Amino acid sequence: MSEIVFINSFEVPVDRDEDFLLLWKEIDDYMRGKPGYRWRRLHRSLDPGARLRYVNVAGWDSAEHFDAAHDETFRQLQSQPGWADFPANPSLYTVVQEDESAASAAA
Amino acid sequence: MSEIVFINSFEVPVDRDEDFLLLWKEIDDYMRGKPGYRWRRLHRSLDPGARLRYVNVAGWDSAEHFDAAHDETFRQLQSQPGWADFPANPSLYTVVQEDESAASAAA
Repeated sequence: MSEIVFINSFEVPVDRDEDFLLLWKEIDDYMRGKPGYRWRRLHRSLDPGARLRYVNVAGWDSAEHFDAAHDETFRQLQSQPGWADFPANPSLYTVVQEDESAASAAA
Repeated sequence: MSEIVFINSFEVPVDRDEDFLLLWKEIDDYMRGKPGYRWRRLHRSLDPGARLRYVNVAGWDSAEHFDAAHDETFRQLQSQPGWADFPANPSLYTVVQEDESAASAAA
């Protein structure tokens, strides 16, 4: 079944991981209960000098489900002053190329 | 089995999709044959105004496999002048949070 993918890259200074994760978890916990939510993976860069140190990648049933999930409660969580320290690059994507290696698929 | 994830976000003007995909496919075809390669998904933003219009997310067995794959042939492919038009933000990540919804897992 096709899906849409939400990708959000965050600029997080190396000494601010805890503050970022507290804020992120609040929104994450809320969104995971929403209709249409499928999965998500939060990634942290191995390189402390990377600009986009955290990247969240999440699958949703459709853009409509995703949009509906961004309600008043979401906006309240997102408008907390702490978020100003962590610039984000959120966007909704479609998968245009997908591949799994034979070795990986058989594992 | 744990894995590491390579994420590369690209800035691609809306009228340059074909040029970008030709360059990207050359490197992609090469890397998919390398030891340690597992899977990849290339995403295109639904929003033509997004800054990071393409995002490639790829799973590898380890950072060592990933580094070894970036050999002389890779560097030749990447040094083609056309790439100057498409700024990239490549970095290697670990997955720090992972979740799949009950509904999605049962589907």
